[in-house]
Amino acid sequence: MGAREKAVSRRIRVIGIGSGNPDHMTIQAIDALNSCDVLFVPTKGEEKAFLAELRHEICTRFITGPMPRLVHYAVPKRRADGDYGAAVDDWHDAIAAIYEDLLLSEVAEGETVGLLVWGDPMLYDSTLRLIDRLTARARVSFDHDVIPGITSLQVLCAEHRMPLNRIGAPVTITTGRRLADGWPEGASDVAVMLDGVQAFNSVADRDATLTWGAYLGTPMQILRQGRLGDIAGEITATRAAARAEHGWIMDIYLIRASATEADSDGEAA
Amino acid sequence: MGAREKAVSRRIRVIGIGSGNPDHMTIQAIDALNSCDVLFVPTKGEEKAFLAELRHEICTRFITGPMPRLVHYAVPKRRADGDYGAAVDDWHDAIAAIYEDLLLSEVAEGETVGLLVWGDPMLYDSTLRLIDRLTARARVSFDHDVIPGITSLQVLCAEHRMPLNRIGAPVTITTGRRLADGWPEGASDVAVMLDGVQAFNSVADRDATLTWGAYLGTPMQILRQGRLGDIAGEITATRAAARAEHGWIMDIYLIRASATEADSDGEAA
Repeated sequence: MGAREKAVSRRIRVIGIGSGNPDHMTIQAIDALNSCDVLFVPTKGEEKAFLAELRHEICTRFITGPMPRLVHYAVPKRRADGDYGAAVDDWHDAIAAIYEDLLLSEVAEGETVGLLVWGDPMLYDSTLRLIDRLTARARVSFDHDVIPGITSLQVLCAEHRMPLNRIGAPVTITTGRRLADGWPEGASDVAVMLDGVQAFNSVADRDATLTWGAYLGTPMQILRQGRLGDIAGEITATRAAARAEHGWIMDIYLIRASATEADSDGEAA
Repeated sequence: MGAREKAVSRRIRVIGIGSGNPDHMTIQAIDALNSCDVLFVPTKGEEKAFLAELRHEICTRFITGPMPRLVHYAVPKRRADGDYGAAVDDWHDAIAAIYEDLLLSEVAEGETVGLLVWGDPMLYDSTLRLIDRLTARARVSFDHDVIPGITSLQVLCAEHRMPLNRIGAPVTITTGRRLADGWPEGASDVAVMLDGVQAFNSVADRDATLTWGAYLGTPMQILRQGRLGDIAGEITATRAAARAEHGWIMDIYLIRASATEADSDGEAA
């Protein structure tokens, strides 16, 4: 950590704010939010209005001192052509450069900046990678910490009142893009995030149990569970209708393969 | 849900309380805790004193009305001999029978019972399975809901300030017992929980990165990260010393395989 060798003059706090219900806020996240002088706020995408409202509610409900200054920035578009990996790389570099400029122009030395992350910063989110880029670029010295938040995967399980794993069994967390390429080797329980292609339709095991949720934790929440072969069509239709109604969708699901495996491990009661 | 067809007379709330830091409590969990008339409290194991203190701190800090009644029960021992699956099955049945008796003898109709679960009830915890047994036994009618909590896996990543997944890549969550049987097919990033056997020692890829944490979120927290071949011995020794000092240990780790895979998926900024 090169930044640690210099005088630490700014602090970045990466704060998980939960999946869309302000009540997901932890005491730790509330305390972190209250320590911020500035919040960086992305303006992007179709879920913009919902996210802006959620952020506003979280700030007004939980901040007890003066409001942090809000610094808005436009998230650059990712190139859709050419090499995918290179496009993501360039895109991350462009966002890191924006952070860097904002830190230098909008944040005084000694101030604390909050980055509010939907869900948990550890799971399919690029904020921590952007911070690592900032560190590597070394134009701004800062320290940072990370506050975990409730993920949509946890809310999916809670709302369906089910465990993620079978007794002592493994679980694979993956993306829709990956699942569309084939069922993960050796897996019997697969949680799927970031699925823009309804990859569950490509799963051969039609007797698998599909547990699905959209807008988890929000007033728009939708839940479905059943035999994949029976409910895949309904979910595709429900998803399309919800997306048309709200202008955006965030959904996630768990597929439990039908072939049962012997339970072979214990767990805490 | 047979219980739903009868008059619902009791309510069970399964509440995730985080991995050991009271500040992990969410607003949702605090509200749920405050709705409880009774808490069922297991008395078990070497971590008993720590858990009792954590529960006490959570109750005294966050309950604003009258304290719920605490109903203690001894967790039965699981048979160590014979068929493992049958032993777990009998054990779960014995605990379900205890819950049933306590619900009938200690909880009046119309009252709400809280079950406080360390971490999140969805992840390697048997409480939701016990509730399903209670429903199936149908001796007591009740309704129930589930409140997610911060897991040690999230705290591991937050404290190490790292994502769980590589960009767009899958992650396997498994147990030490499973890992000791072999590296999960097709996996490159593996999170390991419930490892009493230090299964990381059996991993052939000595160039993998091992990210380890014990007592995550508590004042006893220990963190280590490095090349597996370099730090496996140190972690084994650190773990043994900590266990001897505290009388119990809870640890978890992530192994990132050294063979890099092309990043082939995007994620939200």
